[in-house]
Amino acid sequence: MAKVKALKCKECGKEYPVEPIHVCEYCFGPLEIEYDYDEIKKVVSKEKIEKGPKSLWRYVDLLPVDNPTVGLSAGFTPLIKAEKLGRKLGLNNLYIKDDSVNHPTLSFKDRVVAVALSKAKEFGFDTAACASTGNLANSVAANAAASGMNCYVFIPANLETNKIIGSLVFNPTVVAVEGNYDDVNRLSSEVANEFGWAFVNINVRPFYSEGSKTLAFEVAEQLGWKAPDAVVAPLASGSLYTKIWKGFNELKTVGLISDNPPRMYGAQAEGCSPIYKAFKEDRDWIVPEKPNTIAKSIAIGNPADGPYAVKVGKESNGDMEIASDSEIIEGMKLLAETEGIFTETAGGTTIAVLKKFAEKGAFDPDEVVVAYITGNGYKTMEVLEGHLNKPIHIKPSLQEFKEKVIGIKVEK
Amino acid sequence: MAKVKALKCKECGKEYPVEPIHVCEYCFGPLEIEYDYDEIKKVVSKEKIEKGPKSLWRYVDLLPVDNPTVGLSAGFTPLIKAEKLGRKLGLNNLYIKDDSVNHPTLSFKDRVVAVALSKAKEFGFDTAACASTGNLANSVAANAAASGMNCYVFIPANLETNKIIGSLVFNPTVVAVEGNYDDVNRLSSEVANEFGWAFVNINVRPFYSEGSKTLAFEVAEQLGWKAPDAVVAPLASGSLYTKIWKGFNELKTVGLISDNPPRMYGAQAEGCSPIYKAFKEDRDWIVPEKPNTIAKSIAIGNPADGPYAVKVGKESNGDMEIASDSEIIEGMKLLAETEGIFTETAGGTTIAVLKKFAEKGAFDPDEVVVAYITGNGYKTMEVLEGHLNKPIHIKPSLQEFKEKVIGIKVEK
Repeated sequence: MAKVKALKCKECGKEYPVEPIHVCEYCFGPLEIEYDYDEIKKVVSKEKIEKGPKSLWRYVDLLPVDNPTVGLSAGFTPLIKAEKLGRKLGLNNLYIKDDSVNHPTLSFKDRVVAVALSKAKEFGFDTAACASTGNLANSVAANAAASGMNCYVFIPANLETNKIIGSLVFNPTVVAVEGNYDDVNRLSSEVANEFGWAFVNINVRPFYSEGSKTLAFEVAEQLGWKAPDAVVAPLASGSLYTKIWKGFNELKTVGLISDNPPRMYGAQAEGCSPIYKAFKEDRDWIVPEKPNTIAKSIAIGNPADGPYAVKVGKESNGDMEIASDSEIIEGMKLLAETEGIFTETAGGTTIAVLKKFAEKGAFDPDEVVVAYITGNGYKTMEVLEGHLNKPIHIKPSLQEFKEKVIGIKVEK
Repeated sequence: MAKVKALKCKECGKEYPVEPIHVCEYCFGPLEIEYDYDEIKKVVSKEKIEKGPKSLWRYVDLLPVDNPTVGLSAGFTPLIKAEKLGRKLGLNNLYIKDDSVNHPTLSFKDRVVAVALSKAKEFGFDTAACASTGNLANSVAANAAASGMNCYVFIPANLETNKIIGSLVFNPTVVAVEGNYDDVNRLSSEVANEFGWAFVNINVRPFYSEGSKTLAFEVAEQLGWKAPDAVVAPLASGSLYTKIWKGFNELKTVGLISDNPPRMYGAQAEGCSPIYKAFKEDRDWIVPEKPNTIAKSIAIGNPADGPYAVKVGKESNGDMEIASDSEIIEGMKLLAETEGIFTETAGGTTIAVLKKFAEKGAFDPDEVVVAYITGNGYKTMEVLEGHLNKPIHIKPSLQEFKEKVIGIKVEK
């Protein structure tokens, strides 16, 4: 694989061969893919990408996979010009990158799993696993089923019912751990150390996380090979946010765009905001939290890439904000009512924070702003209970319709 | 609009101007779009389509719309080579056309609504409405919200909760009618006659139903401009099934494919199978039924296009079959476990019927067979209760994992 030189420790810089490992054995820093951008430059081009498959695999030259075999329909989701929401927020060039219709399981996790399991197959693994707040479990279970791998998914026992069924239907072994995501993650690391499985977000994490770069690649291509001025993205582990930044930077490095990468605005739930706090307090370390928010898919109290996310926030001249649970629900409703897109709580957080930044004047009205919607509202429906209007019940009669729905008094 | 000549009665052939009307005033037959295929032939080409938008609007030359403004990201969903399911069924070239990730509301209805409401806007309507078993309501509500139209959706009061919330979130007026879909439909027709609204599947139906042709267009393009040998599609009103047939025929008429159109296999639920029965009994009329099935989205007891579906079944050398509720659930699970695709009950019906026909030897092993998956499993989750394995609950401890999940006896 000429395009990938090595794995490299993000802290001490020590290099490792390309293997399913994720931690530096000297300094315990995380490992990241080290590319040979000169080699990539020779083979990559806009024309080649545009002729590629209608999936994230059109960017295979910038991903650490030689032979994509899993998730062949993932990615290349719509980028929507959000005219109505933009008018409400005073933004003339607002776009929604909509992963709520990602294939097959309706979240951005279908991107990272496509990359992780394609690589896992190259490594020869026959069992896929993950620690998950729900969306990742759905995607690992679906993609493992489709590619004939055994599958174990580890989730917090208190997850939304819909997300649990959304994994069980693919018939993996679902391990419901009594504890929060950080407990699940800790147990999963122990299991990963002992069993020879491809834990997509543990031992395969350096490959897995690269899948999020395609959120940058696609937006740039869909804008006509341009970077936006600013993006708003949710912060969970911090991985997605840092990889979107990396993606835009790589496009510039290999000459596919000439703009500077965007300012990166990060969104956390008020009930779990360790990255936001570190950013605001100018710390380069994270103080872990016990999550307490309806936005469970982004409720990671001890985020692995937190410090790197803080750095990206600063480096990109971005900013971070938080949204309360009721603001999150209002965010979900606002996106639905203006743009007809039904997102889950993570997306509600992103829209709530977008709104706050727009109201604070963080964006010029004509700037190109992209908000990343990372999951589908069908997965977290229960949070909407009591927050929506109710159906009007009538008998199948025109008279009842006129009286009860339109409010016309009908003579009897 | 040179490509559209008129509306024409499917029964008596009387022609009407292109207006929001749907019934012949002489014989009460349904009206259908009459195209000028010679004009279309002059402008349509594979090259032009392939350069078009990544949505169903790449086929605008074959649709009754001049100016697409609604549903700009609908369609162009994945066509998946179903290797694992194919092996189980003895089919070497089985494909799944997967509208479970259609934009924005995860069903094929996003196609017909895109066409219907784009046309409604051309006609000058400001209010969108529909009679729906759920999926259509979701799509009309979402697309009306995004395009700034008022919205009324009429549904049977006993619909799946998820589908109701999936409409309410877009803040339309939801009218829950005490009765089945046919009662809802009857009331909607009365309302349509009295109020000046665009009822997508009533007064705008001739335009609306044309949207389903894109399910044929996309499959042909995705197969490399070829028609499959056979397709399996669900039968609800009969519209989708007849329009897929029409779509393949049109591609041949305008010279985009040279193959004959496929044999059309139709799928109904045992608890609502009036089209299947007419087909098997060689009748050209439908005996209405009271639906009793979990497959609510296709439970139409008095299907408007039933007689035309029977005709297409015969004309195409196809066949029809039914699936019981338990077979429908098995169909949902089979697709999930083999291909990682989570479909709703309608999709389960299609897979169950595909399996029956495969087992009966209806297909040669090397024939290209396409099964149409028309909706997402998240919308009908409740039917899976009691039919899936359960999560295994453990404390966050490696020892508990080994004992309870793997079954290793651990010394204490």
